[in-house]
Formats: sequence, structure tokens, C-alpha cells
Amino acid sequence: MPAYTAPAKDIQFLLHEVMQVSASPVPGYAELDADTTAAILDEAGRLASEVLAPLNAVGDREGCRLENGVVTTPAGFKDAFAAMKDGGWNGLDLPEDYGGQGLPYLIGSAVGEIFVSANMAFNMYQGLTHGAIGAILAHGSDALKATYLPKMVSLDWTGTMNLTEPHCGTDLGLIRTRAEPQADGSYRITGQKIFISAGDHDLAENIIHLVLAKAPGGGEGTRGISLFLVPKFLVNADGSLGARNALGAGKIEEKMGIHGNATCVMNYDGATGYLVGELHKGMRNMFTMMNEARLGVGLQGYAVAEAAYQAAVAYAKDRLQGRAVTGAANPAGPADPLIVHPDIRRALMDQKSFIEGARALTFWGAELIDRAHRLGDAGAESMISLMTPVIKGFLTDKGFDSTIQAQQVFGGHGYIEEWGMSQFARDARIAMIYEGANGVQALDLVGRKLAADGGKPIMAFFEMVKTFIKENADNAALDRDFLEPLKAASKDLQAAAMFFLQNGMKSPDAALAGSTDFLHLFGHTALGLMWAKMARAAMAALAAGTADPAFHQTKIATGRYYMARQLPATRLHLARIESGAAAVMALAAEAF
Amino acid sequence: MPAYTAPAKDIQFLLHEVMQVSASPVPGYAELDADTTAAILDEAGRLASEVLAPLNAVGDREGCRLENGVVTTPAGFKDAFAAMKDGGWNGLDLPEDYGGQGLPYLIGSAVGEIFVSANMAFNMYQGLTHGAIGAILAHGSDALKATYLPKMVSLDWTGTMNLTEPHCGTDLGLIRTRAEPQADGSYRITGQKIFISAGDHDLAENIIHLVLAKAPGGGEGTRGISLFLVPKFLVNADGSLGARNALGAGKIEEKMGIHGNATCVMNYDGATGYLVGELHKGMRNMFTMMNEARLGVGLQGYAVAEAAYQAAVAYAKDRLQGRAVTGAANPAGPADPLIVHPDIRRALMDQKSFIEGARALTFWGAELIDRAHRLGDAGAESMISLMTPVIKGFLTDKGFDSTIQAQQVFGGHGYIEEWGMSQFARDARIAMIYEGANGVQALDLVGRKLAADGGKPIMAFFEMVKTFIKENADNAALDRDFLEPLKAASKDLQAAAMFFLQNGMKSPDAALAGSTDFLHLFGHTALGLMWAKMARAAMAALAAGTADPAFHQTKIATGRYYMARQLPATRLHLARIESGAAAVMALAAEAF
Repeated sequence: MPAYTAPAKDIQFLLHEVMQVSASPVPGYAELDADTTAAILDEAGRLASEVLAPLNAVGDREGCRLENGVVTTPAGFKDAFAAMKDGGWNGLDLPEDYGGQGLPYLIGSAVGEIFVSANMAFNMYQGLTHGAIGAILAHGSDALKATYLPKMVSLDWTGTMNLTEPHCGTDLGLIRTRAEPQADGSYRITGQKIFISAGDHDLAENIIHLVLAKAPGGGEGTRGISLFLVPKFLVNADGSLGARNALGAGKIEEKMGIHGNATCVMNYDGATGYLVGELHKGMRNMFTMMNEARLGVGLQGYAVAEAAYQAAVAYAKDRLQGRAVTGAANPAGPADPLIVHPDIRRALMDQKSFIEGARALTFWGAELIDRAHRLGDAGAESMISLMTPVIKGFLTDKGFDSTIQAQQVFGGHGYIEEWGMSQFARDARIAMIYEGANGVQALDLVGRKLAADGGKPIMAFFEMVKTFIKENADNAALDRDFLEPLKAASKDLQAAAMFFLQNGMKSPDAALAGSTDFLHLFGHTALGLMWAKMARAAMAALAAGTADPAFHQTKIATGRYYMARQLPATRLHLARIESGAAAVMALAAEAF
Repeated sequence: MPAYTAPAKDIQFLLHEVMQVSASPVPGYAELDADTTAAILDEAGRLASEVLAPLNAVGDREGCRLENGVVTTPAGFKDAFAAMKDGGWNGLDLPEDYGGQGLPYLIGSAVGEIFVSANMAFNMYQGLTHGAIGAILAHGSDALKATYLPKMVSLDWTGTMNLTEPHCGTDLGLIRTRAEPQADGSYRITGQKIFISAGDHDLAENIIHLVLAKAPGGGEGTRGISLFLVPKFLVNADGSLGARNALGAGKIEEKMGIHGNATCVMNYDGATGYLVGELHKGMRNMFTMMNEARLGVGLQGYAVAEAAYQAAVAYAKDRLQGRAVTGAANPAGPADPLIVHPDIRRALMDQKSFIEGARALTFWGAELIDRAHRLGDAGAESMISLMTPVIKGFLTDKGFDSTIQAQQVFGGHGYIEEWGMSQFARDARIAMIYEGANGVQALDLVGRKLAADGGKPIMAFFEMVKTFIKENADNAALDRDFLEPLKAASKDLQAAAMFFLQNGMKSPDAALAGSTDFLHLFGHTALGLMWAKMARAAMAALAAGTADPAFHQTKIATGRYYMARQLPATRLHLARIESGAAAVMALAAEAF
């Protein structure tokens, strides 16, 4: 089974050389000096390598079982969860008021990557809890916060998000789960929710479900939706656990992957729930949580790809097959290692250059969230709002492709379960689907975010690219290999935005037919910008006499690969966008 | 579970309107009049829809079991195999001398597509047998043919191909399985083979293994390899079954997909085998079989995509979610069907335009094989040799992408096993790997086929494109939407070939670093040519007053989509190729 080592050096490079976090004005960033983050990453890496990664295949093989209404997680998950809890990892970036450590979301994301790479399915129990805490923090009453947050921050209790129903996923206006107000101010929740990750399990004493439901008087569609907190066990006034609530897991889904996480059908049979935030404003409350949740899924996209890449590199160095075309590299052996072959190199460089760019983009997204929350920076808020569908959609699409490429390096051994590569592929697949399928991300980007606030956020993105290019115009090496391709990509992105502007009004189809291509065009351009920034930092380190020149040279070479071989995809996406809606919408539905 | 309907109309269009098979000089093609092929496709379609497709999920869920050395296939497979046998399907395109019907390989491929779409794992038992028969037909002695072929053609016995060993897949020079000559002219075969599809099962009385092994005196590497026929049960002189041979399945692999097929570790412990073809010429003998076997895998690539596409279309028409951006399409209902949304259309058009183009390419490949075998057409032989890696690599890479897109249409329902889309994705994945991983196909194309015979085959391809364009230059509608994009793609392909010619000599890495891109560039150009031909035929039918104008208009619209949205990918592949090897090979192995 694949071993996993946290890429601490790459993460440190981003935090301290590219982003220079300690010098940032964001409250809490000054505490993130290189020694502190190194210690955190080291500790997280140890937990990941020693405890989580060895359980990844176990979770996949055993899956979760539902027997007599009780869900059992795979062998070893309980102990690992206890270790996660004891380490205080969930509270790392949560408020000290509720038992957290109050560090920035950025470092929480860096640690999250490490845990996801090691064991994606396992980390979802904590990840969902983190998301639920966010919703309660943002919208819950003080009483709800006091009752639920400390236990959730400590992982004594976990959380879930209940949106989807059998007949509706994206279109939440159709939901049927009802909330009946009671005399004591609580609600009785009745309905069925599906695809509820971590819906039930044996890792925590209580499970706090956040449930979208319709209360009377809210009107049709999404306007009538409210958000409710529905605990598995009711909580007494003294904080102790009371009666079992009227809810339960009706079924565990059999899935393609993430078998270690219990994906449940949840039945609410008049369960007691408490309103979170304003009545009938549930959708708005959910949306405020979306940026973080979707950033977290984008992170899964490249984090699983990272784990698969590490395994592919190890195999490519170890497996002897064929001879290098330029002459034997291992003349004493029966054959050369796979890594000598140019097409294997291409596959590894595709993966490496994507993953490192994706990490930079995700960390930038996390920084924007910190700026928005900790500095009240409205520009950062609108920028992350724009970038969220790009991060979620592009990184999960490409993360899956990258994982498939890693699997391909193994040949037939990649297809059998024994080597673990099939699991990575099967696990990575879900990230393209949940938390808003990627087509919905593209719709959100083109139909909503692009035109938001008169197009100011995307103008700010272009301005950022322009400024970076101008500031570095005198760096000849950067200019040829990085700035020129970035300029071309940015021009393609602008042309695409212009096309939508000119055609979208008279034909909304023309914009939406190109939405997925626009999302990818944007993703590539954003990764191009990230690589230009990383290359600048690496060049600066080399000029300043870095202690590890090979590392910084490798960064530059990897960036050059991205700019030369991946970034030119922007032109193809633009061509597709500019071909308009005619070819896409030509057929009547019956013609399919 | 997904229903499946054979695309008989699309196949008939190809055979009779595009390829005009009845008018072909290839022996046997005249018999393939429209009524005959319609009857064959109808019968095959019925077996596929009624017997094979309903077993697809069963096979996936149950898999194969090895207990006490005996392999059991999933429930229902035995009856289905009996139906396949009784229908005489295996012998459709095999020689009448051995009980076949002697029809062309082309119609065998058309029927093969239908069976693979319905149940890929099941059809492999027959597919492998077909391949083994081909090897024996081409290289076996008359005695071997007389003893084994009639029973294999009838499917009383099935066949396998044994190449891979634990330490070697692509690099067969490393194999360790030994063949010791015996006094009676037979050999004792000893060694272990892995990844043997249909290696053992309960569907047939006997299993005929074709095994690559090293006999004494053959020298090092691939030169020392010979091909042996090793039956599970020895065959008596009267054709009855004798003693059990010293071989057996040691293990069934747990795989990502194709669970219905038993992928075995095969142990040969001094088993009796018989030389097939010349001693020490085993690799050459295998290679003569490769074109057909690889064409068959390319076919799997689009055939599974077709089944997934059919399911996605049904779901997109049925599932109500959201409203059309141009106004409600189903105002009486709670929401509109998914198919109104432009991004869903894009996904379906991507699939449809790929699958239909892929079918045309595969059928052309099958025709080339028929021309080579039945007419002794050397040009066809060298053309199929060139096209084989393109068909195998491009159609399986894109077929997998297409299947993933079909799965994506289902949202969360695509990820759970209940709807069958996960199975399509997991099954489709193997086609990119087996019968030569796609990276090896790209290496074969660029390193061997491109320069073969002084480059004549690829020049012939360019000439064919040029001639087609010239012949149809006066067709204005074809010219704008089809010939112009085809010309551009062909130019990109020529530029890439030129780049390899100019740089490959001084730096073989420069060619091989672009090999996968070249394979895709070639695949797109070939599909562009296929679409231009299909569009011409559809336009001719419309001009002649077709009875089904909607069908022919749909063909043209689907082709236009391919030319406008997919074919421009050639430019991206060319850009990557022309970026050379520097970025790909920049890093030392330690830097990964």
C-alpha cells in the first residue's frame, strides 16, 4: 500500500517564500513564523503517515456497516479519531472562545491537505464537523453556540450537512422536508435526506445535523427554506446527553469510493430541531458557508492527486521495464526504471506541475478567506467569491485526471486493488460531484460571479495579473518563460469574458454553453499566475544564495513545464467558447 | 440499472451510406447487403438487451470466486454463455473450415460493439477466445488447428493469452517462464503468469492457453521467446478430453472493474504445451495478432462510452432539476429536465460526437484488416499498422473521459453503485491499460510506426485527407464546416510529424516527450476525417430525399459540433509537441 509523506518543504516554500505570511497584516499571520508552521506540519505529517495513511486501504476494503440502526466504521477508525481529537487538530483554526486555537484558516488548510492526502474518507468526519461549526458560528444564536460548539470543536460530537433529497440535489427549491413550529420555540423536522456524509457512525457521542427544511409561511421555492440544528441525542440543560431524537440512518449507500465514510440516507420522523439564523433565510445561510466548503473540496481534488503522485513516483523509480532511448541508465540491471522514459516523465510532470500550482491557488484562496474574516477586507471577500467555483471545479476535474495519470504509471498493477491506485481514482471521483457538481460550479461562475458587482471582481483579477507582470518586467528570465505565457492566457480569459458580455445578454445559452470551458480557462490562468509567483520567489531565493538550490531550481523547472505544456490549453477553451451555443444546442431533445 | 439498445441505425448508416460495403471489392462484402446486416444487428441487439445487459450489474456485484482451485462465474453467466454459443456468434467472422460463418471481420466488429456495450466483462470470455483462435489460425500447425479450432470456434472451449509476469508487462524480454523440450515434440512449461483474463472459469469444458515462454537456445531478451498452446485438459487423439494438465489459477485479482471476468494468476508447473509457429519467433507471432486485439480494445473504449451515454441521455430527459435559462420548458412540472441546460447538452454532445466518430474509425480499421487479409492489400496492411495505436490509445483515453462525463450527468446518483454509472467508469478504465498501456501505444506510434517504410503509411494518410478535400471542394456546406477544420487539423498533424523528423534524430527524447500528444493529435484528425465523410454521406442522403431527414440532419449537426468544439484540440497538442523535450526531461530523477 502507498506510503505518504507530507510535502512540508513545498508548503513551507509557499507560506514563507511566496506568501510571506509572517509579514502579512492579517491578524494571526504574524504568529505563523517558519518554525511554528514547521512544527505544526511536522506533527500533522507524523499523524498522517503513521496513523491515517495505513488505514486508508482498510477503510476502502471494509467500508461502513449499518446493522440494527447502528453504523460501524472500519477497524482502526475509532483509535485514529481519538488521536485526531487528542491532538486538538479540529480546533486549530477555530475560535479560542469555544476551545479552538484561533490560528488562521490558511494553516488549517495546509494541515487539511495533509490529512486528506493520507485518508480522504476518514478526514471527512472531521471536515463535515468543521463545516457545521462554521454555519453555527456564523448564524447560530448564542445559546446554540454555547451548547454545541465546545463539544464539536473538541470532536466529542461531529456534524453533518443535510441538503439533498431523493428528487432534488442542485435544485433545492424542490425540497419537501418540513419543519413544524412547536410551542417551546423548537421545530419538528420530518423528511428524508440522502447522500449525508458521516450521517451516522461510532466515532463520537453525538452527531449534530444541520438540516434544510421548509417551515410554514415561507413561500415557494428556495425562499421557503430554513436551516435547523437537529442533534442525534437531545442535549440537557446541563450539557449532558438526553433522549435519542427521532431520526436515524435508513441505509448506507454503496459507492464507487470513499468507503470509509458512511454516506447515509437520513430519516427525520418528527425530530426536534432548532432554528439556525433567520426563518426562511436558510439558503442564504448555507451560501455563506459555501466558499469554505467548496475550497475544502477543491483541496481534496489536489490532495488525493498528491498522494497518488507520490505513489507513482516511487513506482516509476523502482519498477524496471525497458531501456532509456538515449542509452541504458541502469546497465547493471535487467532493465531501466520507468522514470527514464519520456512519456512517464511527461505524466509525472503533468501531475507535479498541477499539484503544486493547485496548492498555491488553494492557499491563496484560504488567505482571501482570512482577509475577509479577519480584516473585513471586502475586496478579498468578492475575490474569493469569484474564485470559489474555479477552485472547486478546476482542481477537482484536474485532480481526478492527475490521479488517473498516476494510476496509469502502474500499468496493470494500477488496476488491481492491491496497490491502492484504484482507490485513489475511485475516491478522487466524488470531489467533481459533491458540494455542487462541477457543471453547477461553471454555471455559478458564468451566470452569477462573472457579472457580480458590475464585473469588478474579475476586473480586479485582471488588474492583479497586469500589476504582477509590470512589476517584474525587468526580470528577463521570468519574462520569457512565465510572464509572456501568462499574458497570453490572461488575454484569452479576457476575450472569453468579453464574448460572454457581448453575447450573453441576447443569448444566455451562448454564455452557458461555454461555462465549463470558461471555468477551465480561468483555472489555467490562475495556475499560470501562481506559477509565475512561485518562480519569482524561487529565482529570488537562488539570487540570494539559497541553502537548497536544487529545490528552487526544481520549482522553476516545474513551473516552466506548466507554462509550456499546460497553460496553452487556454487557447482551446477560448476557441470552444467563441464557437457559441449553436453547435451545442442544435439538436432537439428527441435527437439524443 | 441502465437499459441498452443497440444503435442499429447508426451502424447501418456507416456500413451502407458511408462505407457502401455491398459495392466493395473485398471478398465477402457483397454479401453484407442492408437486409442481411439489419437482420444480424437485430438478432445481436436482442441478445444484448435481453440477456447480456441485465447481467452486467450482476457480474459487477458478484464477481468471480476461486474456491478449491475452481473458478465460479457470476449467476446467469453460464446460461448467457450458452445462448452466445447457440447463436454461433463467435464463429460469425471465422473460417467456415472450422465451423465459422466466414463473414468479414467488419461485421464481427459491429456485433462485437453491441455485446461489449451490453456487458464488457462477459464478452471478454469470447473476445479472448477469438484472439487465441486468430493466433492459432495464423501460426499453428495443421494438426493443432484440426484439434483445437473447431471446439474453440463453437465456444465449447475458450482461449486465453498469457504474456505478463509479475516483474514484466511491457518489457517481455524479461520473462522467466521456461519451456523444456520433450522427446515427443511437446514442451514442459513452468512459470507464473499474471493478469490472465478468463484464465479459469466454469463456462467451457476446456481452456486453451497461449503462453509466451523461453525455450533453450533462443538467446537473450525477446529473441528467445516462443509461443505455446497449453490446454487446461489434455486432448486425446480422438478429440475427447484427457488428463488435467499441470496448470491452474492460483488467485483471482481484486480489480477496479470488469469483475465479471476472472483475472487470474496462472501457475504452470511443468504443464504440457505445444509449440505454435516457429521456435524463438514467439514475439513476431504475437505481433501479428496485435492489430486485431488492439482494435478490439479501442472498440471497448467507445462501446462502454455508448452504454454510459445511453443511460445519461435517459437520465437527462427524465430528471427534473432547475429551469431552462431561456424560460421554463416544462412549465406544468416542478422543474425542467436536465437536458434543457446548455452545460448538460455540451456534455452529451461531447459524448455523442466522440462515440459516433470513434465507431466510424473502428469500422474503417476493421475494413483495412479485411482488405489486408481478404485482398492481400499491402497498403491496407501498412495503414492499419499505423492506425492501430491511434485506435487503441485515443479511443480508450477518450472513451474513458466520455464515460466519466456520462457519470457526471447523474450528479451524486452517478457515484453510488445503484445506477450502474460507477461500473461503466470502473470497467472503461482497464481499456487504457491492457493490451499495451496507452503510453506504450504512443511509443509504438512515434517510435516505430511513424517512420516505418520511410514514412509511407503516414504520407498515405495525408494523401487520403487531401484527396477527400479536393474531391469535395465544390460542396460549400461541407467545405465551411468540415473541410476547413479538417485541413487545419491535418496541417497540425503534418507539422508535428515534421517536428519529429527534424528533431527526433538528434534527440529521440524530443519525439518521445510528445508521443502521447501526437497520438491524440492523430486521433482527433482521424475523427475529423470520419466526420467529414459521415457529413458528406448525410448531405447526399438529404439531397436524394431521405426518408428520415431528422436522422441525417442530426448526423450533420453532431459532426459540426465535433469539428467546432473538439477538433481544435490539435493546435494544443501541436504546441505541446513543439515545446520539445527540455521541459519534460529537465529534472533529475531525485527531484521528483
